[in-house]
Parts: sequence; C-alpha cells; structure tokens
Amino acid sequence: MKPNVLSKMGRRTTVPPISWLMHAALSRPKLISLAAGFTDNATLPVELSRRLLNGILRSPKTGRPALQYGITAGENNLRALTAKHLQKLDRGHDRAHSPDRVIITGGSQQLLYMTLEALCDEGDLILVEDPTYFVFLSILQSRGLQARGIKLERDGVDLAHLEKVLEHLKKSGELRRVKALYLVTYFQNPTGVTTSLAKKRATLALLKKFERAAGHPLYLLEDAAYRELRFDHGADVPTALTLPGARERVIYTGTYSKPYAPGARIGFGILPEPLFTTVQRIKGNHDFGTANLLQQLLAGALESGLYDRHVAKVQKNYARKARVMKQALAEHFPANVEIWESGGGLYFWARLPQGVSTGAKSKVFQTALKNDVLYVPGELCYADDPERTKPDNEMRISFGSASAENIRLGIARLGEVLRKYC
Amino acid sequence: MKPNVLSKMGRRTTVPPISWLMHAALSRPKLISLAAGFTDNATLPVELSRRLLNGILRSPKTGRPALQYGITAGENNLRALTAKHLQKLDRGHDRAHSPDRVIITGGSQQLLYMTLEALCDEGDLILVEDPTYFVFLSILQSRGLQARGIKLERDGVDLAHLEKVLEHLKKSGELRRVKALYLVTYFQNPTGVTTSLAKKRATLALLKKFERAAGHPLYLLEDAAYRELRFDHGADVPTALTLPGARERVIYTGTYSKPYAPGARIGFGILPEPLFTTVQRIKGNHDFGTANLLQQLLAGALESGLYDRHVAKVQKNYARKARVMKQALAEHFPANVEIWESGGGLYFWARLPQGVSTGAKSKVFQTALKNDVLYVPGELCYADDPERTKPDNEMRISFGSASAENIRLGIARLGEVLRKYC
Repeated sequence: MKPNVLSKMGRRTTVPPISWLMHAALSRPKLISLAAGFTDNATLPVELSRRLLNGILRSPKTGRPALQYGITAGENNLRALTAKHLQKLDRGHDRAHSPDRVIITGGSQQLLYMTLEALCDEGDLILVEDPTYFVFLSILQSRGLQARGIKLERDGVDLAHLEKVLEHLKKSGELRRVKALYLVTYFQNPTGVTTSLAKKRATLALLKKFERAAGHPLYLLEDAAYRELRFDHGADVPTALTLPGARERVIYTGTYSKPYAPGARIGFGILPEPLFTTVQRIKGNHDFGTANLLQQLLAGALESGLYDRHVAKVQKNYARKARVMKQALAEHFPANVEIWESGGGLYFWARLPQGVSTGAKSKVFQTALKNDVLYVPGELCYADDPERTKPDNEMRISFGSASAENIRLGIARLGEVLRKYC
Repeated sequence: MKPNVLSKMGRRTTVPPISWLMHAALSRPKLISLAAGFTDNATLPVELSRRLLNGILRSPKTGRPALQYGITAGENNLRALTAKHLQKLDRGHDRAHSPDRVIITGGSQQLLYMTLEALCDEGDLILVEDPTYFVFLSILQSRGLQARGIKLERDGVDLAHLEKVLEHLKKSGELRRVKALYLVTYFQNPTGVTTSLAKKRATLALLKKFERAAGHPLYLLEDAAYRELRFDHGADVPTALTLPGARERVIYTGTYSKPYAPGARIGFGILPEPLFTTVQRIKGNHDFGTANLLQQLLAGALESGLYDRHVAKVQKNYARKARVMKQALAEHFPANVEIWESGGGLYFWARLPQGVSTGAKSKVFQTALKNDVLYVPGELCYADDPERTKPDNEMRISFGSASAENIRLGIARLGEVLRKYC
C-alpha cells in the first residue's frame, strides 16, 4: 500500500547525487576529497564567535531577544547591516539596496527554494548556466520544473546562445513557462567563472526584450554565494542590482555561510515585489523566520567590523590553497587537460579530451577512487536539456576543505590517473 | 504584467491572520497582548546558553564542527539524545523511538511543512481538530490542500464524528485524497485539550480501518509542540508512538523551541518510511540540514541534564501564571462564559454565549482593542469546512508572554468588555 501515499513531489525527490559521493568518501578513510564544497575548518571563526555570543548573551539589551521569536523577514538590525554591507561591496547607495527589500533566511539555499515556490508551477522552465550548481538542479527536478542550459563562456553566459534559446522558446510557445534565468555570478559553482558587468547588463536587456512575448516579468536570479571568497583585495564586479531597471527584475541571493560559518547558517536576499511579500509569507509558513541567536551573531560580527577582518583572512587562506592547487595541476595534469582557473571561490574546473569520461561509472572515476582521491563528475552539473547531450568529460576539483598537503597529494594521485587515460 | 508571474501557490499564500494582530499590537503601545503565543521572556535560558556555547566553542572537539556543515537529518549526537529524551518521556524503549528515525529541523513548523510536501498534492485532504493550530491551516491553504474538521471534546477528537466523516468521505469517493489526521495532542493550540491515550489508540484503529478504502496509509500526524509545558511534575500521556502498529503510521513532531528557546529554533520528529527518507531529501533541497551551532547547544543542554532542570523551572513559571489567569477569569468574566482550563501549555479557551461574536470586526474585539487588550478570535482557528459554519463566539487567551500583573489587568479589561456584551 505504500507506493501511492507520497505526493508527486515526494516521489520525484530522489537521492541527491552528492550523497553517494559522501558515502564513497566515508567508506575509504584515507581518501582525499577534492569533491566537497565545504569551507576550510582551519579558518572557521571559533574564538570570534565565542566572544560575540558571550557579549550578546551577557547584555540585557540583546540576551533575551536573541533567544526569543523574531520577525519573519529577519531582525531589522541585521537587515540594515546587510543592506549597508551590499552597498559597500557595490560601491554605491541605491534604492535597490534598501533594508526593507532584504530578507534573512536559513542560508541562501532556503531563499532559492522559497523563490522557486513563489514563482513556479510544475512544468515551468528556468534557464540556467550550462553547467550550473547541482543542488539547484535537484530543487528544480524535485518541484517538477524544467531547466534549459545556456552555454557558458569565461565571462558569463553566451549571449548569442541565450538569445537563440529565448527565440526558440518564443516560437515553440514555451516562453510563457519561463520565469527566470539563474546565474551564479561570482566564481561560479562548478566552473569558477565570474559574470562581467557588461554581460549582466546585456542579459537583463535580453530578458526585458522577451517579456512582452512571455506575458510576465523574466527575472534575473543572481546567486552570489561565493562573492566574498575572492582572492585579491581589489573591488569586485558590481551586482546586477546596480544596473538601470534592475530594481524590479533582479532577485539577488547571498550568504554569510561561506565567508563566515556554515554552522551559523544565515543567508539573505534582495527581492522585488510581488516576490518580496510572497516569499516573506512563504517563510512564515516554513519557520516564522530564522533563529534570532544566529542573526544576532552575524549582526555583531558585521557591526564590530570583525566580520571584514575575518573575511580578509579567509580570502588569503583560499588564495594560498588555490595557488598550491594551481602549481600541482601544472606539475601533474597532462597538457591536453584544459584547466579553468578562478579569481576566487572554492573550485577549479578541468576539461579532459573529448571522449574521456569522468562520470561515476567511468574508468577515470573508479581508478581515482581506488587511488583514494575524489572529485565531482562534471555531468552532475548539467541540466537534463533535450537540446544537447550532457558533456561527461569534465570535473570539479575543490581546494575548499583539503589541507595544502592533501591538495598536493590529491592532485598528484589524480594526475597519475589522467596521464593513463588522457 | 505582474499578476501572472507568481505561481499558484504564490498567489494563494495570503497575509497571515496573526500579522494584523501584531500590527494592531504595535500601533497601541499600552496594549496588553493575550494573543501572542510567544514564550515568557523572563525564563529564557540566557545565562545557561552562554555557558554552554562557551564550552562548545572552547573545546577543540566541538568548536569547529559547530561552525561547519553537518548532516541533513541532523547531528547524530542530538538525534540520539532526542530519541533518549522521548524514550524517557514515554517511559519505555521501543524501536519506534530509534535515533535513526529522528530528524532534526529548524523548529517543528519546518517539519510540518516538509511532511505535507512529501505527502500531499494539491486538492488532497487533511483531517484536523475543530478548532486547530491556525498556522497549520495557513500552510494547507497556501499549498492548495483542504481541511476537514473533527469535533473536539475535552479529551481529544469526537470518535463518532471522526468515523462519520471517514464514512462520508468513503461514500463520496474522497477518501483517496485523505492523507492524514493532524492532532495537537498536548495542551492543544488553541483549546488546551490533551488527547488521552485511549483516544489516540481508537483514532489509530479507525484510521487503519479505512485504509483499504483509501488505497494508502492514513497517518496520524501527532504534533506535540506543547508537551513539555505541563504544570505538574507527574508523568504525561504517552505518545501515539507507544501504541501497537504505530511505528508505520504515526508521524511525531516535537520542538525544543517552546521549552528551551525559540531563538535557538530546533525542532525534531520521528517519521515512518517512506516519509523519513523523503523528508530528509526534501530538507536537503531546503537547507542541507539545520545550523550545527544550535544543534550542539541543545545537545549540550540535554547531555548535561541542565535542560531538564531548566524545563522544570519553565513549567513552574507557566503554572503560576496560569493560576493568576484562572483567578482573574473567575473574578472578571461573566458566569455565562465557558472556560476551558488546561493542565499545561500557554492558553485558556473561552466560549461566549451563542450569538456573541468575537471576530476581528465584532464589537467585543473592537472594544477590547480600544481598552488596550488583545486576544485571538476563535474563528481564525477553524478550517474552511463546507460541512459547518465557523463558530465565531470563542477566544484564545494566552498567559505565555504577559507578566502576572498584565495578566490580571488584561483579564480585568476583557471581563469589563464581556460583561457589557454577554
């Protein structure tokens, strides 16, 4: 009697691809995982968080509110600090960055989920980078949504391809099912690509151009999860929020998990109406708002300036580990493997010669596993798109959680496998 | 171009009834709210949490893991402690209470939400107590689910009415749309009713009886959110999990928010397969698992025994405030108002004479507001059920967050209004 009791969504929601990767890791204690997107244990702000929490719980002004219910959209203090933080990163004040457009969530993942709930019915279509963040694909799949991949260049999506796909969808009558284009704009997961401001501008213009045919807004959903993990101290690319017309069409999601701590999971976003109000109500049904204690911890870090100091340290650490990996890749990988290097984030992207598969059942993957090294097969990051077959000759390699020593060793092991099969 | 961009769910998700209550409260600074279901500020474990967090973040064993990503179903330590805690409350060890059936969530609200996602398609039907927890009704409404109310007696649902409704649904062919019966089994929100074990047993048997006609399992969804807020130190009613056959048919949800701290929002549940696996995967898409820092805080409290000591204090405090309210009700409320007293929780339930409305637009509500006292109109707690009109002569009165002094004053004000209209 069991099979029919689950909802359609319940039946669609499959085991996440990452879980067998983790399972593989657990069964081999000596395995070096270059697969996990975990942040580095060594730079977690343990002592800083201890001091901040002490202060929060010692103060009569903040102690009890930190342990009480709060406001669904998030604590006003953290919303204001987050708006200010984004203004600073974008080097400008704008109505698009107003605190009353900010929502605080349990990580940016939760915000992506609720945004799709607010926006999409079963059968709707989201355009994504090809390849893209695989957990996002897993949400789409679970909710019965379709994805269409837009080719990715070194500075963002291929605009000609985006226009071609939109034209095609218009002709086939599918454009009214399209709700948004999802871009991971900084040090993209999995490729490390950062979208240039020029591409953000052109993308927004293209979406605008097709709105009449769609019959509704076409949103740019900008996921900036890795934004603060850049290697140099220079200014970063401004968000799409800074562009004209963006206020009504850009959904921006960010997180403090990656730069601060995943264990104090706080994400945030800036949403246009009617999405802001709708997502806020949906959040009321999910959980009435994110735990106040964590919100106050982040507010304390931001307000004191200790957040910025911590992030500078984190950036240096990842930059160092990326250099170690770069050097090891140069030393151990065959010359016919194309490496995409990034200016931040947690990943390198490697493209093997056509015909050499990296998938879970491939010789490359199995031999790597036997040699105790794990990567994410590139094919997991590609949507089920009827317009093309999934490339299966790529891999995502992370320097996020492994030590410098293990990065060297892991790349050496992987290089040995690749020299055999490439 | 805006109206069509939202999903069906987005369009259905309305402003929560509680938000205008809160708005009303904010606009009158002297108002005494007997509406909010907030927990008491005075007994929040501020100093206890400070010490526990200090210990967690000082220890090399727990410091970094507390700030890192974890496991989607929850930290194994907290899952084991939670299973043990439930075994203790239920005075017995059983396979139904096994840690590997426990899932940790961001409050029990999130678990209710995800359970409905796993179980129900649009148009499906959930049986609820009449009246019931209004945020649960709001989730149902938002997800396009229907509710059917089962009459409530002082010891749980009216079994004859439950059978009648099930028979009726069987005859009308709607039984295959029914997925669960939702019961708030301890000190129910809003009536304070506790479901007896005999009624849990009979309910489970009745659901079982109709399964063949339904074509799938009919679950008992037991929401025990208020369970630990009982006034006496004696043993409480065992959960439905302790009954024969429960292992496969009872979904149990509980929370540490009410007895410990809403600001460290941790809920939990015990789920049968295939729901456990499905909800775990859905949680992976929502947020990969609840913030580790909060999980470790609760694990620390439970492990040290300080949780139990804290809860004993909380219980005493609410018992005292309930006595204050009881006395004030006896003194100020007219004799023709029926009062439902509870052995725990946060609420009294008052039933006015037939014909006297308590709704938001009623003279009673408006006069009460003018006199600076707020309650929750009973009608908000009733499902849209085609089988009956909603009673509108009741009110939920909470002693949760108001001080003893304000409870006395608030009830005096409310009594004055009622003496005029009853």
